[in-house]
Amino acid sequence: MNIVIVGLGLIGGSMAKALRQNTAHRVLGMDVNDDALLDACSCGAIHGKASPEDLKQADLVYLCVYPETALEFARTWGPQLKEGTILTDTCGIKGEICAGMEQLRGTGRYRFVAGHPMAGKELSGFGASDPSIFVGASYLIAPCGAPEDAVETVAAMAREMGFGRVVYTTPQEHDQIIAFTSQLPHALACAYVMSPRCRQHKGFSAGSYRDVSRVANINDVLWARLFLDNRQSLVKELDELMGNLTAIRQAVEGEDEERLRALLRAAAQIKREEG
Amino acid sequence: MNIVIVGLGLIGGSMAKALRQNTAHRVLGMDVNDDALLDACSCGAIHGKASPEDLKQADLVYLCVYPETALEFARTWGPQLKEGTILTDTCGIKGEICAGMEQLRGTGRYRFVAGHPMAGKELSGFGASDPSIFVGASYLIAPCGAPEDAVETVAAMAREMGFGRVVYTTPQEHDQIIAFTSQLPHALACAYVMSPRCRQHKGFSAGSYRDVSRVANINDVLWARLFLDNRQSLVKELDELMGNLTAIRQAVEGEDEERLRALLRAAAQIKREEG
Repeated sequence: MNIVIVGLGLIGGSMAKALRQNTAHRVLGMDVNDDALLDACSCGAIHGKASPEDLKQADLVYLCVYPETALEFARTWGPQLKEGTILTDTCGIKGEICAGMEQLRGTGRYRFVAGHPMAGKELSGFGASDPSIFVGASYLIAPCGAPEDAVETVAAMAREMGFGRVVYTTPQEHDQIIAFTSQLPHALACAYVMSPRCRQHKGFSAGSYRDVSRVANINDVLWARLFLDNRQSLVKELDELMGNLTAIRQAVEGEDEERLRALLRAAAQIKREEG
Repeated sequence: MNIVIVGLGLIGGSMAKALRQNTAHRVLGMDVNDDALLDACSCGAIHGKASPEDLKQADLVYLCVYPETALEFARTWGPQLKEGTILTDTCGIKGEICAGMEQLRGTGRYRFVAGHPMAGKELSGFGASDPSIFVGASYLIAPCGAPEDAVETVAAMAREMGFGRVVYTTPQEHDQIIAFTSQLPHALACAYVMSPRCRQHKGFSAGSYRDVSRVANINDVLWARLFLDNRQSLVKELDELMGNLTAIRQAVEGEDEERLRALLRAAAQIKREEG
């Protein structure tokens, strides 16, 4: 297949490297940043830069850019893609992109499949890209009405990149659960380190501090967009969390040991059941 | 030295193993649970069970039990310890134990030094004990008026057990910072997993879910005590956290991207500076 990766940041760069390592497909790249393209070429992560002509011959195009840029790309280039090209994205929120792509349906002959590789790290850019972040991770797919063979191609490529499993979902379910599993921990990490005591933590911290605060070194541009694009679900999770924190706070302040133990026991039970 | 470890749970058991591995001191154990004593003897973590006579000859006694039990021990056995015995504890909160020990001052000829090994894991009991949890961790010491040589002995033993550094503090400073670095993350983890979305997380989660929820499988008896013994500082941290979460929530709900980015940037800056 001819594969084009649009956006050679952390995720796009890691995908390019994984595809080059594990498959024989031709992998070309596009990026507004010439340095990222040069770096990707020189380390062999891509076979070269994709020209407009290459794009017209592409079988599979990965949009590894912010949601609005992905939609802009589909609007501009979609009409020029050949019949049957699979266009897929890697955005962390699916509601907006899927609705936008639905509006563009019929403006091109490509098939759109929404995707979300559940992997990352606390760094961004091609320099941070590393295909090992995909190993064993989940690859979420919202088919969005695409034909089965197109969906299966995206799933097969995910497995070839090293993902441990492919999970099918809808944009709505995806965004609700992701608000809990991904955005809330990021909001939490940021709120947590804002305590004045944070600057005194050295020597007084162990694993639990390290783990909760890990993702606080956040890319504010990306995550502000993700939070806002999923604001309903995120606000719901924040309210749920603050309600639960308030219950613990009340038991602590009221010295209600029985109630406090019951709350902690309930949490421990939930955590144990996930095993 | 003759060392007695009172309480062969996760911490006491790990200390016994570390002392036997790394030093030539005689290590005896005491526990209300005969099975823990048997297990500790049979795997060589202790030289044997400490009799009342052994206790009277001890140079160093570690109280690896809950705060009230530690105070009860000092009340009962303190008067029988020999001149100069160092009595030290491993409780996670220092205000209560230090105040209680201060009240007992003069009832025995021992010297009390408060300690807190900043290490643990999500399991408890002798079976979970493992001296490697101490490697590189902090050992906090609140001297509580003990003579310098007694404090130095506790510090030296911590280094021999594999701790990476010894940090001196006061009970007040200790409890304020620990509320932030240790108790708050545990309260948070519990509140977090109580979301109804938690049971749906499978396949939709990655590192940030795993890290925030890790300590939710909590020992409710132990942590309810720790939370209540430090309730003032913990309530303060919970309020601080909920204030910061509310600020993020308001920016998200009001779609104030500039404000949201500023909050996330401030958090990222704090996290980067800790490096």
